[in-house]
Amino acid sequence: MSRGYNFSAGPSAMPEPVLRRAQAEMLEWGGQSASVMEISHRGKAFVAMTEKVEADLRRLLGISSDYAVLFLQGGATQHFAQIPQNIAAPDDTADYLLTGHWGVKALSEAKPYMRTNIVASGEAGKYTSVPDRSEWQLTPGAAYLHVTPNETIHGVEFETVPDIGDVPVVADFSSTLLSRPIDVSRFGLIYAGTQKNMGASGLTVLIVRNDLLARKPRPLANILSYSAHAKEHSLLNTPPSFPWYLTGLVLEWIDGEGGLTAMAARNRAKSELLYAAIDGSGGYYKNPVDVRYRSWMNVPFTLHDDALDTPFLKESEAAGLLALKGHKAVGGMRASLYNAMPLAGVQALVDFMGDFKNRHG
Amino acid sequence: MSRGYNFSAGPSAMPEPVLRRAQAEMLEWGGQSASVMEISHRGKAFVAMTEKVEADLRRLLGISSDYAVLFLQGGATQHFAQIPQNIAAPDDTADYLLTGHWGVKALSEAKPYMRTNIVASGEAGKYTSVPDRSEWQLTPGAAYLHVTPNETIHGVEFETVPDIGDVPVVADFSSTLLSRPIDVSRFGLIYAGTQKNMGASGLTVLIVRNDLLARKPRPLANILSYSAHAKEHSLLNTPPSFPWYLTGLVLEWIDGEGGLTAMAARNRAKSELLYAAIDGSGGYYKNPVDVRYRSWMNVPFTLHDDALDTPFLKESEAAGLLALKGHKAVGGMRASLYNAMPLAGVQALVDFMGDFKNRHG
Repeated sequence: MSRGYNFSAGPSAMPEPVLRRAQAEMLEWGGQSASVMEISHRGKAFVAMTEKVEADLRRLLGISSDYAVLFLQGGATQHFAQIPQNIAAPDDTADYLLTGHWGVKALSEAKPYMRTNIVASGEAGKYTSVPDRSEWQLTPGAAYLHVTPNETIHGVEFETVPDIGDVPVVADFSSTLLSRPIDVSRFGLIYAGTQKNMGASGLTVLIVRNDLLARKPRPLANILSYSAHAKEHSLLNTPPSFPWYLTGLVLEWIDGEGGLTAMAARNRAKSELLYAAIDGSGGYYKNPVDVRYRSWMNVPFTLHDDALDTPFLKESEAAGLLALKGHKAVGGMRASLYNAMPLAGVQALVDFMGDFKNRHG
Repeated sequence: MSRGYNFSAGPSAMPEPVLRRAQAEMLEWGGQSASVMEISHRGKAFVAMTEKVEADLRRLLGISSDYAVLFLQGGATQHFAQIPQNIAAPDDTADYLLTGHWGVKALSEAKPYMRTNIVASGEAGKYTSVPDRSEWQLTPGAAYLHVTPNETIHGVEFETVPDIGDVPVVADFSSTLLSRPIDVSRFGLIYAGTQKNMGASGLTVLIVRNDLLARKPRPLANILSYSAHAKEHSLLNTPPSFPWYLTGLVLEWIDGEGGLTAMAARNRAKSELLYAAIDGSGGYYKNPVDVRYRSWMNVPFTLHDDALDTPFLKESEAAGLLALKGHKAVGGMRASLYNAMPLAGVQALVDFMGDFKNRHG
């Protein structure tokens, strides 16, 4: 057996040096004579680890003291429901921009908790583009505007959110956080499951502006309150120790590779290589997304004849190119190119695609 | 460096064979050419793993088809708040039996969601015993009765819940599930964080009777609904893959050691050895708990002079006996004797306690 190039959309490939270090420290970590998952989350060693993770994340993303950083459980999906409970009152309206499956899901999970408004939707175009700012129907005085900067299923990404005035922008960055520098100050709340670019599943990072933390729009259990978690530095209850530790190792790996500028350069190069191969295939392979909004992270593509899907998947897997099957909502293939995917992996995919075309053309 | 005997209350010691297997499989698992945390939770291999974990748990605990088994996130604390939202209407009353810190916390987190009633409380006796059934003030037609069969801070455990008629009993088994056989059919809902006897932190197991799942007492996001999770076999969203996998390894380990009957015999022997050492110390060491309700899992004890606490902790740690410091609410020491603690570890502690008494007596 050996490790393949893993194009899984998530949970997804992790940097091999991170896995090797976790492996080496599995039985004894940090001078504790125990694994990191066997020790109290209130002990000095564990708390110091969490403080370093937060400091590293703040430095990498340039997060100011206007924001709290939370390390919670539940995945982005739980926070689809928890965010409205924390920052909107039942009579408030929250705006949602829908650019794919996950934005739709975020809206659906939020609906029990307040009024909602769809600002604009890419549905008519099968979510292959982002509705122009001029078409957005914003609600004056909305509690927030929710956006999904990258849609993993449709492969639609937008780098910057247009200016919308004083309404805070809440962004589900699950599939792009740490893939390139962002301007955190443009957002009220950023959140992301860690299982794409930031580690394993089981941890969710939230970056919340202090004025939103101060909103107390409804009675809420302490454990569901972001301000309560912030006050306790995300140690209100037993945290997911091992995923938190892994995220720390991933941040150190990103640092060692040159930080987010290096990640961005690498991710741009990887995606350009793959899109060029698709666009240069004479229609043998196709990606339907508006070129202005093509994702660096998730590249869906179809073959000119879907009868070729099965041999493509079988042969690619045999060649050590893993998890290329597309989401059923769009069909075909999908290559996810998160931080841990090296350029060599994308080159191997592109080479395979050319070879496959020659043999099956 | 070497691993010590780890008496941490949680996260706590894991069986070393489990850690060694996780270490060996860290980079490649189950023929996937990737780690278990790098693959899709919707793929065949991962789903088969989760099905085996559920089957193993059902067999070990004797869980009938009248119950769903859920593998969720959030820890027991999140479910303090989520349980009422799933099985009680805002106008319902839920009963709480308070036998220590965690029952009090469960009540506090539930309060925003319905009416509550304290059936009885051990507070006056500093939670060193369990109020007699004859003193319980039950609410007729309560949505449920909540109990905490083992209180980790106070070291108070009761093995069986007295009969209370048709009101379903909801039990926080975080610190005892899998430590001995239980009669699941006596409960409406059993829940437990996995970080004591069942694996690492980041996963919460719920065993929910189908009639409680069918209650729909209020509007709720899908992601917070137990019935929605049951319908999707706990794969409604990306699960905490690695903690789930670890729990599977722990269940296999328990099986290999002889199942819950063997765990119970071992846990009884371990706790008896330690209580005998405390009780036989002529007052040098003391445990304040009513002998009928002494916990097999968590043994708090004080030294006759608390000036000895610091040397006790320093010397015990130097002897490889880890994490014996008691919770600040009760002071002194606490030895947690979960499944992964071998009898040899308790013998080493008892030997150290005798030696310490001789040297400092």
